[in-house]
Amino acid sequence: MARSSIKSAPEIEALISLLAKVPGLGPRSARRAALQLLKKKDALMLPLAAALSDAAEKVRACSNCGMLDAADPCTLCTIADRDDGLICVVAEVGDVWALERAGAFKGRYHVLGGVLSALDGVRPEDLRVAKLVERASAGGVREVILALSATVDGQTTSHYLTERLQPLGIVVSRLSHGVPVGGELDLLDDGTLFAALQSRRPY
Amino acid sequence: MARSSIKSAPEIEALISLLAKVPGLGPRSARRAALQLLKKKDALMLPLAAALSDAAEKVRACSNCGMLDAADPCTLCTIADRDDGLICVVAEVGDVWALERAGAFKGRYHVLGGVLSALDGVRPEDLRVAKLVERASAGGVREVILALSATVDGQTTSHYLTERLQPLGIVVSRLSHGVPVGGELDLLDDGTLFAALQSRRPY
Repeated sequence: MARSSIKSAPEIEALISLLAKVPGLGPRSARRAALQLLKKKDALMLPLAAALSDAAEKVRACSNCGMLDAADPCTLCTIADRDDGLICVVAEVGDVWALERAGAFKGRYHVLGGVLSALDGVRPEDLRVAKLVERASAGGVREVILALSATVDGQTTSHYLTERLQPLGIVVSRLSHGVPVGGELDLLDDGTLFAALQSRRPY
Repeated sequence: MARSSIKSAPEIEALISLLAKVPGLGPRSARRAALQLLKKKDALMLPLAAALSDAAEKVRACSNCGMLDAADPCTLCTIADRDDGLICVVAEVGDVWALERAGAFKGRYHVLGGVLSALDGVRPEDLRVAKLVERASAGGVREVILALSATVDGQTTSHYLTERLQPLGIVVSRLSHGVPVGGELDLLDDGTLFAALQSRRPY
């Protein structure tokens, strides 16, 4: 397109087309972002370029738990004041961040890298399942907590992992279902209400 | 915060906090974006870092019209098949992109870099007004089209520029107000309807 080449410099067009691929930005917001970045070269644009290169170079998946970190094994695997007898299994790195923000878990993590999915063709060997079984078999692990989404694929994965881990003599648990804290009853779906009633606790 | 330092590597935290400053991304979407970038290092993360550095280094504001380009004077100022007698004045670089996408204007542009604003303390000397008067005075310019927003600040700026340019014997015009193409009447504000009625055209 001849008109497109007049529109702006190739350097800007290249930047916009890459920004548009960043999750959360689309073609329109990528244009706005590119303009703002060009306005804030020293305050934002160059530091962002450096941070991207730096993180791309240094951050790797931990060979033990799959967490992203500059150190391998990662900080969460090596830090002293955590319970080695507890492993919390999550699908993605972002789930570890969410649990750490909540500050409710003080054991170790295992990041699967996804969940089993017949539709997307994700098989056990595509996830970090073998490493989880290896860690659980190594001794000293009392309990594995499956903190996977309550979706069909998440449940399938939980079921599969339970079948792999229980023969090792390890307690396998999952997060409870129920009313979200701060959630209103009349906005909840039937499945959650049913689960919350089933697993009711004495007051 | 000790917990925050455990949460993830400083390289990731630095990347997230910079991504969160990109317009269109917030703290939550910056986390998601950082994870996706780390998953697509070669396909997206490193090319984006390179594109940011490259554009930051090469792209400058055109000394004539204020447009962003790798060349100075910019492509739009130097390209041959455009009418030198017409200057379209816009507030921001994004406005030039919008007009170029529409393909409706074949003259030259002048990017003010904002609009006058008593509230934000933007005065004529903060904008590229002097250069506009210089370009308009240089001869050969028949008409200046003010394509500024129909906001109070935009209108104030249009009024100010008209007072500066008309004494030079130049025709000063502005974009018409009216019903947006594809817009529904009952969703329009009173001011637009009033303007559309006032400047009605024979069918």
